[in-house]
Amino acid sequence: MIIVKIGGGKNINIDGICQDIAFLLEKEQVVVVHGASETRDEIAQKLGIPTKTITSPSGVSSVYTDKAAIDVFLMVYCGLQNKKIVANLLKHNVNAIGLSGVDGKLWQAKRKDVVYAVEDGKTKIVRDNFTGRVEKVNADLLWLLLNNNYVPVLCPPAISLQNEIVNTDNDLAVAVLAGALKSDKVVSLFEAAGLLKNVHDEKSVIRKIKKGELEEYLQFAKGRMKKKILGAQKALANGVSAVYWGDGRVEHPVLKALKGKGTVIS
Amino acid sequence: MIIVKIGGGKNINIDGICQDIAFLLEKEQVVVVHGASETRDEIAQKLGIPTKTITSPSGVSSVYTDKAAIDVFLMVYCGLQNKKIVANLLKHNVNAIGLSGVDGKLWQAKRKDVVYAVEDGKTKIVRDNFTGRVEKVNADLLWLLLNNNYVPVLCPPAISLQNEIVNTDNDLAVAVLAGALKSDKVVSLFEAAGLLKNVHDEKSVIRKIKKGELEEYLQFAKGRMKKKILGAQKALANGVSAVYWGDGRVEHPVLKALKGKGTVIS
Repeated sequence: MIIVKIGGGKNINIDGICQDIAFLLEKEQVVVVHGASETRDEIAQKLGIPTKTITSPSGVSSVYTDKAAIDVFLMVYCGLQNKKIVANLLKHNVNAIGLSGVDGKLWQAKRKDVVYAVEDGKTKIVRDNFTGRVEKVNADLLWLLLNNNYVPVLCPPAISLQNEIVNTDNDLAVAVLAGALKSDKVVSLFEAAGLLKNVHDEKSVIRKIKKGELEEYLQFAKGRMKKKILGAQKALANGVSAVYWGDGRVEHPVLKALKGKGTVIS
Repeated sequence: MIIVKIGGGKNINIDGICQDIAFLLEKEQVVVVHGASETRDEIAQKLGIPTKTITSPSGVSSVYTDKAAIDVFLMVYCGLQNKKIVANLLKHNVNAIGLSGVDGKLWQAKRKDVVYAVEDGKTKIVRDNFTGRVEKVNADLLWLLLNNNYVPVLCPPAISLQNEIVNTDNDLAVAVLAGALKSDKVVSLFEAAGLLKNVHDEKSVIRKIKKGELEEYLQFAKGRMKKKILGAQKALANGVSAVYWGDGRVEHPVLKALKGKGTVIS
């Protein structure tokens, strides 16, 4: 089984990815996971509640997700982006079904009750941040759909143990999902040619990384790529044989990534 | 089986409805269908693309759904409202799964290629209106979920035969759904005590209507209620034994409607 993770950038070639998925399905099962961060930020801005980030005492920044931000999250991830991908897959004769981590408790997460944030040099306690780590997957539901020839198209948010809707790190959620489904491969597509040695040079793609050496590459990773490295580490630890990072903007993004045109970690 | 249709008004007691559904599930299967029109109009307004209506040459007005309106529709129906109802049901230990008519082609509709609209006294052809009538239900998918103890929570839009996302009349979609699932009862909850003889007097509820006499009551129906009458007619024609219209704002909205506190058509 292959998990195809579609990044949240607006230049991702959704149609090309859906076409590739239809092709792959002739030989193996596929589960799709997607983001929608760029559109989320755009809609949040238009609604007058722009996306805010908080910085932890250790310097890691993350999205601050209060109740209003959860609403925007639901609208853009579960509504707009999820159904557009589902409709595109249907167009390619793929029997797609869109679900969030909330549906059937697909992704259960432990909510972080309290988050520490540094603001103007002072550490504050943030209590209205709805975020958590995915710990449990409803694999039975996914197998029920897969064994009946449906292709699940999944996205955050997740559901907390107290049934609150919570934001969650998508790359980590994919890693937990891969473990639960005993998935063989994870293909992650985003708006870059792969992991770049020099972020300003698209030709500086690092082609191969041994899984034991992934930690060393954290130095090349900027922003979101750090989370992708941690997600890949976890996916490999959970039994995935290879993680493929590839350019989501090109023609045949999935097939190219699987051919090693981006970065392969194994 | 009971289909519970939750109207799109903002004063609907979602929590009370979810509590009732949990209770009903001890004895029978339930499928939930919901709207979200009031929140849709609010978000559309905030995004600067307010909901527009068109009036047909025969005087029936309906929502004009161009591509931008479809986006808002997806956001509010499939994202915000659907996942909030699902999370609320989970809180009541109901194994809920939210799906739109797009997912797995749950609601297939024939798109109206062309719509005629009267504007300033002139009849115009509108071509960019994405709307259609639900003609086919993926009952296999619903039975797969129901037989595995999941409660489907459904909403429009539907998917056209050409795989376009299309708006559709929710009450008619419920009627087609009821026929496909051989549902026994339909409970429809909205922001009124039932069908009122006098729209300004909440106490003028018409308690019972014989299905053969439903047509006569069109005179008491204003706006959306006309579509509800047509939907009820179709549901009864499709084999439903009774349609219950009830107040969605009260405590125990579903149980009260089933006890005949609103309008019962049979």
